[in-house]
Amino acid sequence: MPTYTAPTRDTKFVVNEVLDLASYGNLPGFESATTDIVDAVIDECGKFCAEVLQPLNQVGDSEGCTRHPDGSVTTPTGFKAAFDQYVEAGWSTLSSPAAYGGQDMPHVLGFVLEEFASTANHSFGMYPGLTNGAVSALLAFGSDELKQRYLPNMIANKWLGTMNLTEPQCGTDLGLIRTKAEPQGDGSYAITGTKIFISAGEHDLTENIIHLVLAKTPGAPDSSKGISLFVVPKVLVNDDGTLGDRNAVQCGSLEHKMGIHGNSTCVMNYDGAKGWLVGEEMKGLAAMFVMMNAARLGVGIQGLAQAEVAYQNAVAYARDRRQGRALTGPAEPEQKADSIIVHPDVRRMLMDAKAFTEGMRALYLYAALQVDLTHKAQTEEERTLADDLLGLLTPVIKGYGTDKGFDTAVQMQQVFGGHGYIAEWGMEQFVRDARIAQIYEGTNGIQAMDLCGRKLASKGGAAIQAFFKLVDDEAAAAEGDLKPLGEALAKVVGEQKAATMWFMQNAMANPNNLGAGAHHYMTIMGIVSLGWMWVRMARVAAARLEQGGDDKAFYEAKLTTAGYFFERFGPDAGALRRKIEAGSEAMMALDEDMFLTAA
Amino acid sequence: MPTYTAPTRDTKFVVNEVLDLASYGNLPGFESATTDIVDAVIDECGKFCAEVLQPLNQVGDSEGCTRHPDGSVTTPTGFKAAFDQYVEAGWSTLSSPAAYGGQDMPHVLGFVLEEFASTANHSFGMYPGLTNGAVSALLAFGSDELKQRYLPNMIANKWLGTMNLTEPQCGTDLGLIRTKAEPQGDGSYAITGTKIFISAGEHDLTENIIHLVLAKTPGAPDSSKGISLFVVPKVLVNDDGTLGDRNAVQCGSLEHKMGIHGNSTCVMNYDGAKGWLVGEEMKGLAAMFVMMNAARLGVGIQGLAQAEVAYQNAVAYARDRRQGRALTGPAEPEQKADSIIVHPDVRRMLMDAKAFTEGMRALYLYAALQVDLTHKAQTEEERTLADDLLGLLTPVIKGYGTDKGFDTAVQMQQVFGGHGYIAEWGMEQFVRDARIAQIYEGTNGIQAMDLCGRKLASKGGAAIQAFFKLVDDEAAAAEGDLKPLGEALAKVVGEQKAATMWFMQNAMANPNNLGAGAHHYMTIMGIVSLGWMWVRMARVAAARLEQGGDDKAFYEAKLTTAGYFFERFGPDAGALRRKIEAGSEAMMALDEDMFLTAA
Repeated sequence: MPTYTAPTRDTKFVVNEVLDLASYGNLPGFESATTDIVDAVIDECGKFCAEVLQPLNQVGDSEGCTRHPDGSVTTPTGFKAAFDQYVEAGWSTLSSPAAYGGQDMPHVLGFVLEEFASTANHSFGMYPGLTNGAVSALLAFGSDELKQRYLPNMIANKWLGTMNLTEPQCGTDLGLIRTKAEPQGDGSYAITGTKIFISAGEHDLTENIIHLVLAKTPGAPDSSKGISLFVVPKVLVNDDGTLGDRNAVQCGSLEHKMGIHGNSTCVMNYDGAKGWLVGEEMKGLAAMFVMMNAARLGVGIQGLAQAEVAYQNAVAYARDRRQGRALTGPAEPEQKADSIIVHPDVRRMLMDAKAFTEGMRALYLYAALQVDLTHKAQTEEERTLADDLLGLLTPVIKGYGTDKGFDTAVQMQQVFGGHGYIAEWGMEQFVRDARIAQIYEGTNGIQAMDLCGRKLASKGGAAIQAFFKLVDDEAAAAEGDLKPLGEALAKVVGEQKAATMWFMQNAMANPNNLGAGAHHYMTIMGIVSLGWMWVRMARVAAARLEQGGDDKAFYEAKLTTAGYFFERFGPDAGALRRKIEAGSEAMMALDEDMFLTAA
Repeated sequence: MPTYTAPTRDTKFVVNEVLDLASYGNLPGFESATTDIVDAVIDECGKFCAEVLQPLNQVGDSEGCTRHPDGSVTTPTGFKAAFDQYVEAGWSTLSSPAAYGGQDMPHVLGFVLEEFASTANHSFGMYPGLTNGAVSALLAFGSDELKQRYLPNMIANKWLGTMNLTEPQCGTDLGLIRTKAEPQGDGSYAITGTKIFISAGEHDLTENIIHLVLAKTPGAPDSSKGISLFVVPKVLVNDDGTLGDRNAVQCGSLEHKMGIHGNSTCVMNYDGAKGWLVGEEMKGLAAMFVMMNAARLGVGIQGLAQAEVAYQNAVAYARDRRQGRALTGPAEPEQKADSIIVHPDVRRMLMDAKAFTEGMRALYLYAALQVDLTHKAQTEEERTLADDLLGLLTPVIKGYGTDKGFDTAVQMQQVFGGHGYIAEWGMEQFVRDARIAQIYEGTNGIQAMDLCGRKLASKGGAAIQAFFKLVDDEAAAAEGDLKPLGEALAKVVGEQKAATMWFMQNAMANPNNLGAGAHHYMTIMGIVSLGWMWVRMARVAAARLEQGGDDKAFYEAKLTTAGYFFERFGPDAGALRRKIEAGSEAMMALDEDMFLTAA
């Protein structure tokens, strides 16, 4: 049976020592986030997720969800009781606004919760996780009346939320949406259509489910400029806040999936369901992006999460399983064989995982801080910088985080040899669950195009230049013993700059040159971003070691892992830059028929 | 529902035009393999696998195998009838020796059969596939009596074979085997112990199953030097060839696995079962390696196979699914959206798959020819060269072929977006099935150590030098328009040579430097080997184009894909070389406790 221990020490290191959250104490919401409180939240959160959510992870996979003939859906054994505990403990309100019953703590802590919950139980974590996106959209675009009616219960997770975008003929290209919204003259709309792949579309965890649904109003243009966002409750909410009639929306069926069996993935049928407009008509795309961006950071964290739990279990196995002898001679001659952690190839996989998970944790927490600063920083300049960085980092965290998260889960399964392929060990579930994160909330190819096609060029490249400046400054700050790390960071960011320049010189003439290199570019930026975090962490660790004190081995391991990161992740940046510079000619040359199998 | 078309045109291109099988007509067994016969075998084989085996692939996954209380096992619906057709058509005898009822055709054709069968239905293909390994071991080490008793029925697939190596405490490290073999004084041994992960250990396809079992005789040393190989039939075979009593071997349970559900993976309990020694006592390791090497090539082909079928279905989806517009402007303005094959990122994934699958097919067929030449070439020198090359290429085909095969299946699943995660589309099965090939018959980490620790050094490096010479010659032969391909090949093999040199200079002082770089080295050699094949294929294609004639588009696509291969696979060789040169210091530096999660 797999186990999970929340990495509280590492999380506190990043939050308290690397990001120095306490130094933001003058900002609203941060004043109560003292180091003592932060540590207590991290500890309690880790405890809850490890003790309550993790034991349900395998049962969620083997049982899955069940749809009944009346369209209702039952979640796996134990999910409802655990969810009640989750709500009872108030976890859902952690970083939500006080105006709607939230605790208004920094988003940094809300994201820690997302990590721990998702690592303990990916499928479970999705239920409250998706609600965050729906809440963000309502907060940004909902009328006061909609906010008052829905947000307090959604933030309390008394009701959960969903995001309804995809239709059978329409995934990435939201212009193809066919779901109709007919105005009823009373401020409401009648929503009719079919949505697919709706995570948490129907379940037994809450008395109501608040669907946010993209649809087209009559006469709206047949493109993404014609879509509007609606709030469609499963059960209508009376003016006094009590629940009224059942709305005309139903789960038509559950999908049979590769993984995340514990989450109900629904086909949702809207049959003239009552809905209310969020924001303005035909401005649904902007509201959708608010919802989506919140969700994308969460999905990036899911990539880290499955890598983390797979890593923890691979470490345990590698210390326990004995096969063969160390290449340098028996490590434990009194045993019949050494534990496999002595073998360099096993170490390679574990060190790769360690370098990725710890670097990725630092990166998402840095991004989480930007979420806070976007709203709360004192100057417009600081808020803009935070927003620009967040815009750039979101597709990288989602795309690179889930690509590398999946690869890491696969490598950790590999540590187990044949046992990794057997269900009872749990490793193959981590791989199957991790796989979805590369796909949903915009495939990683879409993330790459968002990064390269939109974010790089925005404001004349101001955002990417700001990013380069931060990375350059970090590289320059690495002095003395840390100088090789700074040089290694300068080298990888140099590759990214060269790739950026190549895009500038070649994408105008042929936009396929951008498309051909976008995924490679996203990967380079992932390497640079993690490298940046590693140099930052190394600087803090070196300073702690110089001060003396406890936890020497912890800080020394940070320095070693930082070095390992640049040795083993760094060289790929140059290779990817060369692939980008190969352009799109050969890639696009073949006639489509030449992909067919000739008999 | 996924589909499969056997790539017969591409296979004939490699066999007839690239390898020029007809030119070996003077060798025994090749005289009957005229181009007409070869083409007919390839066509018929493709037809059989696509029409009979592929339709059973999804049912095999969803039903799996069933073990009954008496220990018997039923394969999925349709497997038995298809297997009877397979036997009836004589496929199993294709490249087996005539002395035991085989058709004695070149192994090249036997390997084509392995590819097509495995692509159509991985789980099904394993039943006859594993028998090949058992047959190889008996052919090489069995007494005449054992051969006469077992081989004709095994080659006819009237009986199937298995390989019993792994035990709960013993995977890679065969010295840890506990299964006992007690001599009974009548030439037989009583075999007692438990074997796990035994593919096709029990099933309903054949009246008898011939287990090849590693065990220890009394007093044998407690290491891999103490193991012996035994043949243990499920049903004892009388001297007249009729079936006698049931032997004391039983399937104790079936494993629950990530994939290959259609194949029965058994825990096998031997309870004083009657067995007979294959070869000499305590020489089991050598016999095991014969069995294993045959199996490893087959597993490498399984990597290609799942990549191929995933690719074919991704191509169909990419041509059919419409989302968004080409970056260069609408490709089909009359449609609401373009098919997604216009998007560079989708092309990138498809071209990566095309470059891998076609290159890999050429490489395994080249290796298959070496299998034939090892036995049949006219001079000792040619036979030795073939054997050396085969020894080098086997771990590369198994390790690189399955790593890249899995990655390719994952990428092809990605082309489907959300639909790729849904079971009914079949893509997620390809991914789950492909995953096992990186693990079984020696994990890919073991393949890498076999390559770097054993094969590189063997005969003072003669094998790798012979390989380099062949690659150098191919690079030099690329002239005129092909010169850039030759130069690109020279560049990647240059990286491999540098890595080889680095090992020579650094592995003696610290063998962990070899272990730390072994997997990277295997990957470099995979890139070089495929690049070598691509230049060879490009030379043939260019010559055909110069001659004029049919199939111009086919040959032009070969040239384009060869160029793409070096653009997109080539740069990784340099990055991997740099990782090797980073050595093992940081990788091995951390105390084992530092991998534990600190709270």
